[in-house]
Amino acid sequence: MSMLQENDPYMKDMKQVETAALFRQIIRIMEELRQGVKKPYKEVIDVASGDPQKTGMKPLSFVRQILAACLYPQLINDNKLPVDVRQRAQRLLGECPGGSVGSYSATRGMPDIVHRVSEYISRRDGGAWSNPENIYISPGSQWSLANIFQILVNTEASTRTGILTPVPGYNTSILSIKELGAVPVPYYLDEEQGWELHMEELHRALASAKGVCNPVALYIINPGNPSGQVQSRQSIQEVIQFASEKRLFILADEVYQDTVYGEKSEFVSYKRVLAEMGPPFSDTVELASFHSASKGMLGECGLRCGYVELVNLDPAVMKYIYTQFSKDSCAPVLGQIALDVMANPPQPGDPSYPFYIEETQHIRTTLVHNVNRALTAFNSLPGLTCQPGEGGVFVFPRLDLPPRAIQKAKEAGLGPDTFYCVNLLEDAGVFARPGAEYGQKEGTHHIRICIMTPPDIMEELLRRVTSFHTQLMKDFS
Amino acid sequence: MSMLQENDPYMKDMKQVETAALFRQIIRIMEELRQGVKKPYKEVIDVASGDPQKTGMKPLSFVRQILAACLYPQLINDNKLPVDVRQRAQRLLGECPGGSVGSYSATRGMPDIVHRVSEYISRRDGGAWSNPENIYISPGSQWSLANIFQILVNTEASTRTGILTPVPGYNTSILSIKELGAVPVPYYLDEEQGWELHMEELHRALASAKGVCNPVALYIINPGNPSGQVQSRQSIQEVIQFASEKRLFILADEVYQDTVYGEKSEFVSYKRVLAEMGPPFSDTVELASFHSASKGMLGECGLRCGYVELVNLDPAVMKYIYTQFSKDSCAPVLGQIALDVMANPPQPGDPSYPFYIEETQHIRTTLVHNVNRALTAFNSLPGLTCQPGEGGVFVFPRLDLPPRAIQKAKEAGLGPDTFYCVNLLEDAGVFARPGAEYGQKEGTHHIRICIMTPPDIMEELLRRVTSFHTQLMKDFS
Ligand SMILES: Cc1ncc(COP(=O)(O)O)c(C=O)c1O
Ligand SMILES: Cc1ncc(COP(=O)(O)O)c(C=O)c1O
Repeated sequence: MSMLQENDPYMKDMKQVETAALFRQIIRIMEELRQGVKKPYKEVIDVASGDPQKTGMKPLSFVRQILAACLYPQLINDNKLPVDVRQRAQRLLGECPGGSVGSYSATRGMPDIVHRVSEYISRRDGGAWSNPENIYISPGSQWSLANIFQILVNTEASTRTGILTPVPGYNTSILSIKELGAVPVPYYLDEEQGWELHMEELHRALASAKGVCNPVALYIINPGNPSGQVQSRQSIQEVIQFASEKRLFILADEVYQDTVYGEKSEFVSYKRVLAEMGPPFSDTVELASFHSASKGMLGECGLRCGYVELVNLDPAVMKYIYTQFSKDSCAPVLGQIALDVMANPPQPGDPSYPFYIEETQHIRTTLVHNVNRALTAFNSLPGLTCQPGEGGVFVFPRLDLPPRAIQKAKEAGLGPDTFYCVNLLEDAGVFARPGAEYGQKEGTHHIRICIMTPPDIMEELLRRVTSFHTQLMKDFS
Repeated sequence: MSMLQENDPYMKDMKQVETAALFRQIIRIMEELRQGVKKPYKEVIDVASGDPQKTGMKPLSFVRQILAACLYPQLINDNKLPVDVRQRAQRLLGECPGGSVGSYSATRGMPDIVHRVSEYISRRDGGAWSNPENIYISPGSQWSLANIFQILVNTEASTRTGILTPVPGYNTSILSIKELGAVPVPYYLDEEQGWELHMEELHRALASAKGVCNPVALYIINPGNPSGQVQSRQSIQEVIQFASEKRLFILADEVYQDTVYGEKSEFVSYKRVLAEMGPPFSDTVELASFHSASKGMLGECGLRCGYVELVNLDPAVMKYIYTQFSKDSCAPVLGQIALDVMANPPQPGDPSYPFYIEETQHIRTTLVHNVNRALTAFNSLPGLTCQPGEGGVFVFPRLDLPPRAIQKAKEAGLGPDTFYCVNLLEDAGVFARPGAEYGQKEGTHHIRICIMTPPDIMEELLRRVTSFHTQLMKDFS
């Protein structure tokens, strides 16, 4: 047995066993509440997923108006909707096959939308070149992540394929890798340094794979989920150099790029840094960069749409990817339209511009407000410490529970973090997720909370967590 | 080399080579038309896919109104929309997490919708039992077909997995099977008998697999694509007996169930026949039955939503399927809502009922009208014979081209059917698909045309095909 397997930070039963119990619990509690069973709370606050609308955030009116008008074109003639909405809907319908959102689109997405997404990437990246041919719109970025993983994994080789993955990291990706029979090779983010990514740690991780698997790719989440760190340009440059030297394919999961709130932080894409580094990097390092309509200002998880941009891939691989993506006829057309709006929001002078700015400002302000409130509250509690995040939509505070609580968890057959979440849900009606799902350094325990929620719900959440936590520390001290 | 491999009716380069040329051609022609290049036609009639809205069919107002109101809830308070639409939208929003279609739903679909789809299946099947736990809503039925195929294929066994597949049959399914490294084992539908499925042929096909692969499943398309046949209850019963005896998993692709137009035909589901056969069949034969919001009266291909009902599967396999389906967080929520409307259309007395009936009647009338017009027109042309279909949305006439035309096709490196389609598109602006894509009996050639199109477009199409065909027969006679 190698070092790597002994210390698997992604628990074997991650999601499957422990959190299956948590999911059964939430279903039971919701049902009990519906039936009027008395509890210390009337409603569960569900901050378990990065799903802003589930927690009460409002969708952007401009997006919803356009989608409604595309679905029901009578609205285009109705002057209740702003004129730019109606014009935009009209133009988008003209680009749909048969003039309807009810037709299949091309496999990679509607050509006009793919084109505009490519232009948007160029603008975002200070003019860096982007080729529409390299862009694939898919039913969510999770879908394209799973499919790119599948292409990278060689199931026929005698040595298993390895993919370097962050600890902590987005659990669905890690499960995808495991299900494909590949090996996630963990690299640890440095919690004490605000979850920073250190180059030595990447080197250590790669070395740990020796004799275990054949690492072919490096999976990066920036801004981080659940960790909330945002990589600097310098750090990205070093990672690209490392990937180039070690011949690793970079998967840059950048779905949280539009929610960077750290005062000194700025989102810089891998694509941009790669382009700006110039040759030999810019024309050799293989990169897949992911974005989504589910996150950022839109938060339209239910529409299921994202895109991946592929850079420097072998034409033979690109052809294979096309076939792989053709398994599904196309991404949902309404999701594609939302992506188009994300890439082309209203501009100054457009009738919808002022309200659009108001709504997006409100989301940004809420995020900053919530993260500050959460940090203050959690860091003032004994046994809870929370690193200041810079981006994303989660906080990931660390639990230091009294030994008696840990013992109690053990008796219940649960890890301390899952034990905490189970009781937090049962006693306080707050649905958070245990760190075990995302991987954590041995001996450390965390909980993940989505902070993309209306401020009043955030206050109620903090009140509940504070009183639950205080009681728990008292009971087990 | 075995019998099976020698006579592969699904051309090796099916879709990839020949039809790639056809797709490049359509893109070029569309571009030329856009640029004002003179052609004998102003617009291409695209009847290449089973995509009614692409060919100009209108969506159902009731569906679109509900979707628009769910997206933009201000419309719920607007009395322009019928009251039942507004009530339904309100109720559906109440069932969405966070009250919004912008949230992720449960992996298998929104529980309330899954429940109502299950009740709908029971009603459709004369009260046969349906368990919501066995229903998975997915982003299109193609998605769930591909995933169930993947579960059935054992890539580690020394003998390849075989799946019995119809000739002709839906090409995307057959490509999926091939890409998974499995072997499609062709069984031929009997063209002369209106594409009937004969039991002897299933036996022959199964025997042909001996020494080539290990057949584990039987893929059925009923009503047929592209063949348009509809199986009788008797025929389904025999197929189930066969599957039971040979221990084959049945995949019943029933996406065209709502478009049966044959005077003596009726759609009966595999699920219903299986249930009515009673034990031992009803509790042992493994069945996956597929349906979709893309077809039937809705024709909402762009929404990407379908469901599969799984019957008699091993609990361990069901668990595995759950994991497989969790790769994607959920099906698009708006698609799920469309599926819910499909399962629960307006009822007599509802404000939307009369118009809903008018619209659906119109679709049915159009389909019957178009198929009759197509049959009359094609069967009156020398070198074209078309079997009377009973269901689905395609006609699949057979071409008997003069030897000189076949020679000419050969010189162009094309099969006679692709040669025909290439010229039909170039000269007459009609985009149809060659039979080679779907598999056809050696020495026979067909074209596939979607007949779900407004009658005036159908007339124009028939006019173009007739004059093109007449000229071609003259040129090569
Ligand atoms: C890091 C990360 N990547 C990808 C996704 C998937 O997003 P979607 O499939 O909705 O685009 C998520 C969702 O939470 C995520 O957190
Ligand atoms: C026989 C058959 N099955 C499945 C599908 C896929 O339908 P969807 O994925 O849109 O539900 C089609 C589409 O044309 C089809 O013809």
